[in-house]
Amino acid sequence: MTKSIDQHVKNAFEAGKALCGEGRVADYIPALAEVDPSKFGMAVALPDGSYCCAGDADEPFSIQSISKVFTLSLALESYGDSLWECVGREPSGTSFNSIVQLETEYGKPRNPLINAGAIATTDRLIGKRSADETVEHLLSFMQERAGDPAVYIDDRVAASEAETSARNQSLAHFMASFKNLSQPVETSLSAYFRQCAIAMSCRQLARSGLFLAFGGKDPITSEQIISAEHCRHINAVMLGCGHYDNSGKFAVEVGLPGKSGVGGGILTIAPGRGAVAVWSPGLNAVGTSLVGSLALEHFARNIGWSIFD
Amino acid sequence: MTKSIDQHVKNAFEAGKALCGEGRVADYIPALAEVDPSKFGMAVALPDGSYCCAGDADEPFSIQSISKVFTLSLALESYGDSLWECVGREPSGTSFNSIVQLETEYGKPRNPLINAGAIATTDRLIGKRSADETVEHLLSFMQERAGDPAVYIDDRVAASEAETSARNQSLAHFMASFKNLSQPVETSLSAYFRQCAIAMSCRQLARSGLFLAFGGKDPITSEQIISAEHCRHINAVMLGCGHYDNSGKFAVEVGLPGKSGVGGGILTIAPGRGAVAVWSPGLNAVGTSLVGSLALEHFARNIGWSIFD
Amino acid sequence: MTKSIDQHVKNAFEAGKALCGEGRVADYIPALAEVDPSKFGMAVALPDGSYCCAGDADEPFSIQSISKVFTLSLALESYGDSLWECVGREPSGTSFNSIVQLETEYGKPRNPLINAGAIATTDRLIGKRSADETVEHLLSFMQERAGDPAVYIDDRVAASEAETSARNQSLAHFMASFKNLSQPVETSLSAYFRQCAIAMSCRQLARSGLFLAFGGKDPITSEQIISAEHCRHINAVMLGCGHYDNSGKFAVEVGLPGKSGVGGGILTIAPGRGAVAVWSPGLNAVGTSLVGSLALEHFARNIGWSIFD
Amino acid sequence: MTKSIDQHVKNAFEAGKALCGEGRVADYIPALAEVDPSKFGMAVALPDGSYCCAGDADEPFSIQSISKVFTLSLALESYGDSLWECVGREPSGTSFNSIVQLETEYGKPRNPLINAGAIATTDRLIGKRSADETVEHLLSFMQERAGDPAVYIDDRVAASEAETSARNQSLAHFMASFKNLSQPVETSLSAYFRQCAIAMSCRQLARSGLFLAFGGKDPITSEQIISAEHCRHINAVMLGCGHYDNSGKFAVEVGLPGKSGVGGGILTIAPGRGAVAVWSPGLNAVGTSLVGSLALEHFARNIGWSIFD
Repeated sequence: MTKSIDQHVKNAFEAGKALCGEGRVADYIPALAEVDPSKFGMAVALPDGSYCCAGDADEPFSIQSISKVFTLSLALESYGDSLWECVGREPSGTSFNSIVQLETEYGKPRNPLINAGAIATTDRLIGKRSADETVEHLLSFMQERAGDPAVYIDDRVAASEAETSARNQSLAHFMASFKNLSQPVETSLSAYFRQCAIAMSCRQLARSGLFLAFGGKDPITSEQIISAEHCRHINAVMLGCGHYDNSGKFAVEVGLPGKSGVGGGILTIAPGRGAVAVWSPGLNAVGTSLVGSLALEHFARNIGWSIFD
Repeated sequence: MTKSIDQHVKNAFEAGKALCGEGRVADYIPALAEVDPSKFGMAVALPDGSYCCAGDADEPFSIQSISKVFTLSLALESYGDSLWECVGREPSGTSFNSIVQLETEYGKPRNPLINAGAIATTDRLIGKRSADETVEHLLSFMQERAGDPAVYIDDRVAASEAETSARNQSLAHFMASFKNLSQPVETSLSAYFRQCAIAMSCRQLARSGLFLAFGGKDPITSEQIISAEHCRHINAVMLGCGHYDNSGKFAVEVGLPGKSGVGGGILTIAPGRGAVAVWSPGLNAVGTSLVGSLALEHFARNIGWSIFD
Repeated sequence: MTKSIDQHVKNAFEAGKALCGEGRVADYIPALAEVDPSKFGMAVALPDGSYCCAGDADEPFSIQSISKVFTLSLALESYGDSLWECVGREPSGTSFNSIVQLETEYGKPRNPLINAGAIATTDRLIGKRSADETVEHLLSFMQERAGDPAVYIDDRVAASEAETSARNQSLAHFMASFKNLSQPVETSLSAYFRQCAIAMSCRQLARSGLFLAFGGKDPITSEQIISAEHCRHINAVMLGCGHYDNSGKFAVEVGLPGKSGVGGGILTIAPGRGAVAVWSPGLNAVGTSLVGSLALEHFARNIGWSIFD
Repeated sequence: MTKSIDQHVKNAFEAGKALCGEGRVADYIPALAEVDPSKFGMAVALPDGSYCCAGDADEPFSIQSISKVFTLSLALESYGDSLWECVGREPSGTSFNSIVQLETEYGKPRNPLINAGAIATTDRLIGKRSADETVEHLLSFMQERAGDPAVYIDDRVAASEAETSARNQSLAHFMASFKNLSQPVETSLSAYFRQCAIAMSCRQLARSGLFLAFGGKDPITSEQIISAEHCRHINAVMLGCGHYDNSGKFAVEVGLPGKSGVGGGILTIAPGRGAVAVWSPGLNAVGTSLVGSLALEHFARNIGWSIFD
């Protein structure tokens, strides 16, 4: 089985390789703009603890928005369905950093995977913690999920994020004006910027996503991380909202719940099978890794893991 | 197996029954407003040709927007991916009959399951046919899918639809102003109004959806209706866009690709398992059957058919 | 006095002449696209019946949206302030043919000088007349205002207008869906298209606007055409909404109430002084005559007729 | 002459008096919510230095957004037409604190009289000054214009403003994200909040506006404050954009350039005649003084000062 998966990874990697270097590296954060555009890695984590990897699968990159899935997991487990009072579950039909919908919908973001929604989710996760404690909490969680204490926060990216934060500042203050933040804006953003700066390899990231492929239970440690119901919810939200304004295209082409980050990473979940992470810094016009999504399309189709089959 | 499914249907039906009569019957089309709000039916069609039914499962109702899934199936099979040049695959983040997005996106509707997108899809399906021939073609297709020549078009509903068509007229002319209709507006709408007026029972509708649960192949006749790839695409589009501006909520709560109609019907697809249709005329605030979606949530959760597990 | 005005007209004409041929002739209606872009005329009508003219001041052109001012005059005089129930008086902040605002504001157009608002105004003017009678009524009114029975409707432009009417069809049906038209869409549009196709020369047009510069009273015939109050209202609406999405720029630069048409004409009103019409077919990016507005800016500034002084 | 004006003020005051206490006092800033809703004052300043006053014409109130007109005067005089590169001159068609337009128009506010535009204007006025120096500069200007060193900044209102500033913070950061602020957000807002907290009486305010009624020249001191051209521009911008989303209604009903503040004040300019200030804290649904605008409508109509006559 692993052997055959391994072959599928190799094939998908080759298919992606052909386009490597295309796309545009994110430049809105200076620290991201310096990444080598020819990087490309892929890793499948399986429930028996084995991996199928290709390319730069062990090189850490900035997971950026992919972190939103893990913050959501922790916040949903803490707050249950009451979390949906501060953030919706609907696709937005607009770009990841749009503020238009917030004005017409009274400061409630459409979903937890766009920037405004992720800031609101992080804000709730903070609760009685400080921003520092919250970041510690999330980092520990990621290290445990990855089974690797080497997962770290890239301080340079976090600092760069904070320095170029005007749009996120605007989103946060806008929600605050509707009383939809529970913390001071500075506190919520301080945690949010560092969360986005978590650095992981494809291997670590795929390993971290495994619990979402197995009903909320880590198949290796047998620990129930979140409830099966919340796990379903998170996968459903990823399917509808995980890739900015090309979420529909991704669902059609790849057919798996997933989340993109502007660092070029994508995490996808194959329920009952495993988790797949890819990384390649060149982005398509709407912010998803160009090579990464191509490789995932190949992989999912050929191995037959689409949830729509 | 069927026995256990039968029990799940009964339980889900009972759960829905509790809310029966709540919600608001669609009144924007006079002919729909007259339907008895206490009606409630449910049917699961299985690949072996058996059914599990409850309540008014054999009473025909106006499938309305559910027809969009079948028009899409036929158009996608005719045009292939070039269909996506005239209509997108992204959720809209707005109501089913919104025109705002059309203005900012040059007359190209976001997806084939909102009104504008369905009009564009029907327009393409017409091709070299007349409007009448197109309606004939679609009706024959539905009769074959349902395995029942009794499926019919409710002329009174179609006439009512045409008489109260100002909003759809507006959407169609708007697309025409961007040259995104291939037929005269009257021709496209003439076919579209009759397509929405197809009347089917839950049993017929569930039976008709079976090919979408089995890779495009009707499991009873063994006929390949559409390609496996297009089947995946349609399921993915339903998951993201099938229920107006509560598609995300439906994905979270039910976890199956599906399509709502303002007549109170919902069709859902459980890949590899079967198709489920419910009908209850009372709608929630965004146009989906209130009792129907509740019954589906119960059913999918308890039987464990969510695609996100 | 006339002598000095004459000199100001000459100077303004020379200033405009320098840019003649620039701008882009409207091409969305085939019949308009054929007009010679080097045409340029200017006429000032004075209360003593004299004129100061320059260039092609006696050549008829399609007044297009300028007709909206006269329809508004007649409708406001018929309906009084109740007209404002179907159409607002606020600037729209969007382009002349936008539909977005109609969706968020329940089918009530922002003002009578954008397309949707003008269609609603024409619709009300029809009242118990037929479309033909309404057009007759308006044409007679224009001939009387111009003091010239030669004012006519250019049937070729009207036909061209009707053939390329998809956007206006969409606007009209959209309002109809909110029950904000009193006539069938076809009737309202039939009158609207012909109204836009009225052909007049600068001299005729300036003469026609005189009553708006003298409290609603034609200074030559001494006839009170509309009440002084309505006259003020119309001038105020022109000032805020008369030039699509460059109304603010026009107010700043010219400082007179006015109305642009995509045929390249502009009518401006100098309260207590006279009326000024210019025509030059090349348009700026938002649909106002480029040379015409430049000439008006020169004229108004140098003669000191701005209402803001 | 003054005698007759005096009578018109008295009559207008009586007309307004009838509605006194109606409307809703602004409560979004705690310090404003405490104002006595029955207050009502009116003052006309004339070029000969005389005044016609009624009611609470000598009681200071928070001028709020009316300050934007004076910041604009100073900034336009410093920067000339290049100011229009950072802020437009078009009506917005949206509420005073809307952010939607900023997203679609790349962070450039539509005009200097909505919040975003006023923040950008204040930001430019700062230039090489500190925020404190800028506020000093503006306050001195107001004291000179009012001919009264008693004009002051209400520190309690300024503090209240800063504490409840989330929406303005959001607007400022949004513009900053498009690099349309020249100062740090904190600096611009620090000046902006104090500018809004200037307290003046109707008499002082009317006196301060006189230069705008006389081609930019203070008719009492004979000092040319701003150029005649800039004066015309400011009046034109006030006419189109001075009263949030009821600017069109105000132009129709009052027919004078003016600016409303949520403190209940309105300043209007009658070119060549004088300046009129009213104050009554109860606001209509879109933020303009209800009694104040009624009194101005009466006054302008009966005295015949409309610029549209």
